[in-house]
Amino acid sequence: MIDLPNPPRIVIVGGVAGGASAAARARRCNADAEITVLEKGPAVSFANCGLPYHLGGEIESRDKLIVATPELFWNRFRIRVKTGHEVTHIDRQACTVTGRTREGKDFKLPYDRLILATGSEPYRPPFMEDGGQNVFQLWTLDDMDAILDYMQRRPCKKATVIGAGFVGLEVVEQLQRREIEVSLVERLPQVLSPLDSEMARLVEHELLARGVQLHLSASVERLLTDNQRTSAVELADGQTIATDLVIAGTGVRPRTQLAREAGLELGQSGGLLINDYCQTSDPKIYAVGDMVEYYHGTLQSRTLMPLAGPANRAGRVAGAHAACGTAKPLGQVQGTAIVRVFELSAACTGLNERACRQSGIEYRTATIQATHHAGYFPGAQLLTLKILYAPSGKLLGAQAVGPEGIDKRIDVVATMLHMGGTIDDLANLDLCYAPPFGAAKDPIHMAAFVAQNDLAMAPRLAAFDADFSDFQIVDVRSASELSRLPHLPGATHIPLDELSDRLHDLQNDKPMLTVCHSGKRAHVAACLLQGKGFQGVHNLSGGMSLQRLRSPSAPGTEEESSKP
Amino acid sequence: MIDLPNPPRIVIVGGVAGGASAAARARRCNADAEITVLEKGPAVSFANCGLPYHLGGEIESRDKLIVATPELFWNRFRIRVKTGHEVTHIDRQACTVTGRTREGKDFKLPYDRLILATGSEPYRPPFMEDGGQNVFQLWTLDDMDAILDYMQRRPCKKATVIGAGFVGLEVVEQLQRREIEVSLVERLPQVLSPLDSEMARLVEHELLARGVQLHLSASVERLLTDNQRTSAVELADGQTIATDLVIAGTGVRPRTQLAREAGLELGQSGGLLINDYCQTSDPKIYAVGDMVEYYHGTLQSRTLMPLAGPANRAGRVAGAHAACGTAKPLGQVQGTAIVRVFELSAACTGLNERACRQSGIEYRTATIQATHHAGYFPGAQLLTLKILYAPSGKLLGAQAVGPEGIDKRIDVVATMLHMGGTIDDLANLDLCYAPPFGAAKDPIHMAAFVAQNDLAMAPRLAAFDADFSDFQIVDVRSASELSRLPHLPGATHIPLDELSDRLHDLQNDKPMLTVCHSGKRAHVAACLLQGKGFQGVHNLSGGMSLQRLRSPSAPGTEEESSKP
Repeated sequence: MIDLPNPPRIVIVGGVAGGASAAARARRCNADAEITVLEKGPAVSFANCGLPYHLGGEIESRDKLIVATPELFWNRFRIRVKTGHEVTHIDRQACTVTGRTREGKDFKLPYDRLILATGSEPYRPPFMEDGGQNVFQLWTLDDMDAILDYMQRRPCKKATVIGAGFVGLEVVEQLQRREIEVSLVERLPQVLSPLDSEMARLVEHELLARGVQLHLSASVERLLTDNQRTSAVELADGQTIATDLVIAGTGVRPRTQLAREAGLELGQSGGLLINDYCQTSDPKIYAVGDMVEYYHGTLQSRTLMPLAGPANRAGRVAGAHAACGTAKPLGQVQGTAIVRVFELSAACTGLNERACRQSGIEYRTATIQATHHAGYFPGAQLLTLKILYAPSGKLLGAQAVGPEGIDKRIDVVATMLHMGGTIDDLANLDLCYAPPFGAAKDPIHMAAFVAQNDLAMAPRLAAFDADFSDFQIVDVRSASELSRLPHLPGATHIPLDELSDRLHDLQNDKPMLTVCHSGKRAHVAACLLQGKGFQGVHNLSGGMSLQRLRSPSAPGTEEESSKP
Repeated sequence: MIDLPNPPRIVIVGGVAGGASAAARARRCNADAEITVLEKGPAVSFANCGLPYHLGGEIESRDKLIVATPELFWNRFRIRVKTGHEVTHIDRQACTVTGRTREGKDFKLPYDRLILATGSEPYRPPFMEDGGQNVFQLWTLDDMDAILDYMQRRPCKKATVIGAGFVGLEVVEQLQRREIEVSLVERLPQVLSPLDSEMARLVEHELLARGVQLHLSASVERLLTDNQRTSAVELADGQTIATDLVIAGTGVRPRTQLAREAGLELGQSGGLLINDYCQTSDPKIYAVGDMVEYYHGTLQSRTLMPLAGPANRAGRVAGAHAACGTAKPLGQVQGTAIVRVFELSAACTGLNERACRQSGIEYRTATIQATHHAGYFPGAQLLTLKILYAPSGKLLGAQAVGPEGIDKRIDVVATMLHMGGTIDDLANLDLCYAPPFGAAKDPIHMAAFVAQNDLAMAPRLAAFDADFSDFQIVDVRSASELSRLPHLPGATHIPLDELSDRLHDLQNDKPMLTVCHSGKRAHVAACLLQGKGFQGVHNLSGGMSLQRLRSPSAPGTEEESSKP
């Protein structure tokens, strides 16, 4: 360990992205340390995750977003906070930082330990250069204030949100809340890229049902701007979207210039490399928050994770270690995230299919639909839960979408991922059950049971997006379901409760695929067929409920028009 | 492994308590097995956890409680269900069961494998002998029908519920829902014995606020009955409670007579002893549900656990193993349970303080109050979360009470207990966060941080129910809080934000105790004092918010009258 003077002089660059958390923790660990926070912006600590919700008015008071003031930091913690102080240079030899204040005054400060928390900044796509004064990003209090100020001066009827990530969707929801017609433009063929496409489709259906104009696989060609105002967004396919307001949320990138110029080492993903105590390649300099690479426990590699939870936890670790030379090591991240989109929530943890493929990790999936609490109790709502697991049974990730109980299921899986558990562990969990809260077999158990059956080939699952043309398809839904719902071409229809009597109606010259609405009855049917000697029996994963999610969402789809 | 004929004849005794689950699983694992379910009662599978909710009308239709009919079992699974069939004898030599039908006909059935799922029955306290036709227990559909029938014939204004366990509290809530005045009588000094007393107190406050007449530490002496109707409950202290209806919920005991008479081995707690595949001491005979002992993972011993979740999971294991000789082993239970009591939920998992003491397990506790989602987001509700942990950091249990988000936190802890995790694991979890769902530092993290600080003596926690007479007490709440809220006798008052300036006001001739509302500011104060060289500094666990929960609840307490 490098020598730590006592009391140490601790300088923290940036308050928001884990910096304030580091400062408070440093004080608790060392009553005598000299602690200074240098923050470029006007506020040392604000709730950046709350910005979209004040935009839409769901959080009424702007004051609620201000977590702590410089006065509180001084009175309570004897921490000096200097807002409007931008650090422009680190002298690692002299152990000083220099910079300039908002008023243009130079400053210089010595440190024994330096904690960098400069966060991230929104990626600024080239088309924004053509933007008028009604084109914004939403990342800081200033950004939010500017949008609100503009909307007050110029009432907006139509807005275009570019980018369908977490923040983008929150902004869409909140603008609709203000009765603004929203168009959502996304370069990828789906919203929410951390989700697999069929899970994202559930969110897309909700957006369409709420009247959001959805443009997927759509690049912005340019912004049509006149008199400092952008009046339309032109897409690469020539389509134009008339608009009174544009908000771009096209991702963020770590703010590492200061660190790079100081020669600190970066990782492969472009974030700062840190060890278990948040120390950079210079052990006197720590870094936390969106600017660093975290160790992803399921991916088993380092990755950017610009989220508030990891930033806060890293701040605690860095603050303690800088103040007293010791700390509990920083934990892993699992990529856990959640977003509310109108009445739905969508959440994920661990790896999705793309991440598995990109990393060469062999995986299988099980998707179930189940009610979020006992089906016989009033208010039960359907949720869709997908888990990913290795052929060994090791759990790899999960995604869930539904109106209720999404965060709970994903938190349970995130906990299991942290501990390196398997689908058998999931199946055996002893979870809360009373009719208002869950089911004797929780959706978590149901997903694990499906995965266990799949791996035991009892029987195997067929992926929802497989090619079924070589299968003999047996649809075991009831006659009334068949009459009003889509079915797969060429399917033989035998309702489950008649299957035992009608086995002789079936040939076994092809592999067989059993199908029902969700995969539950089809599992019973597949077990029966396999048990009666039929060969190559598969159960269609997620049943017909997943089939309707195969093709990209588009306005005017059946799902849209069938919603109230 | 003992020889398993194919197809095996599988006989299942009892449908409700895991039996139906075993039967369906047996069929899925073996398409040819002959499967018969013998059920004494009129329904093979009903939602017994839903009974209180139909009593109160929250579940409107009785049909919703019927999970599956004998016809469905036959059509779908080719499982023969015989209701009204009581098994009275097992001949283990001949491998037969004999019994009598509801109509008085004898029957005899051979088995290759036998699965016992006879469940539990409510304990019938002696005072019930004096009870009139308006004195009930609530365990079966028949019980529920009888209560509803009686209430329809004789409108009830006042009811007395005896026993404040999970079912008792559900019944209290549901009777109040029918605008019946409810008295609740409990032998112990608290409701909900799986909770520690101060956590139970939160539930007691809710009951009092809802107008429930609470009689704790109260034994029933006798029921005053005239003309077949009980008109009052007389307590041991002479008090009488006038009543139109009595429902006793004083616990259940495993129904093991049949198994005992067959010479099957019992465990220490009186439940049937089973192995990892639910086999009893006779490997051809399985047992599942409330009648068996489960392995409690945290307690590391076998215990009764009359809950639906374990019964269902055990049914799956037994069904598979009986049908094909192999199964995934049965998982551990953690004693996870939850109940809704009006606007509150209360849940627990793992060990409570009493269980630790009884088992000689050394433990410490950390209790926090936090909002269930970001405090700045509308609708944030306070929850109280208590965790128990060993001096090694190993997690031992948790309890939570609050209006929202209780099941989620307890499920996360239950998952951690299943995996044998520590408070450090809890502190490092990567959980869902967006303002509508949680906080960057979730209540789970906050509790783990408090526990980490306690074990690191940074600084130590003082138990909420310790004797503080030898401490110098420093109350760091604001002047406005002090003026309207209770405080500890002899406390010195220094608001936290003035503490740095006023250290010279404090002597250090005694160990010191810092106090605030919840323990958060007091932690900051304790760190400062300890850092400035004060000796023996402790932070009062849970702050003054737990102090008000020290003494047993009684009608007319401050909490009651201050509620709207």
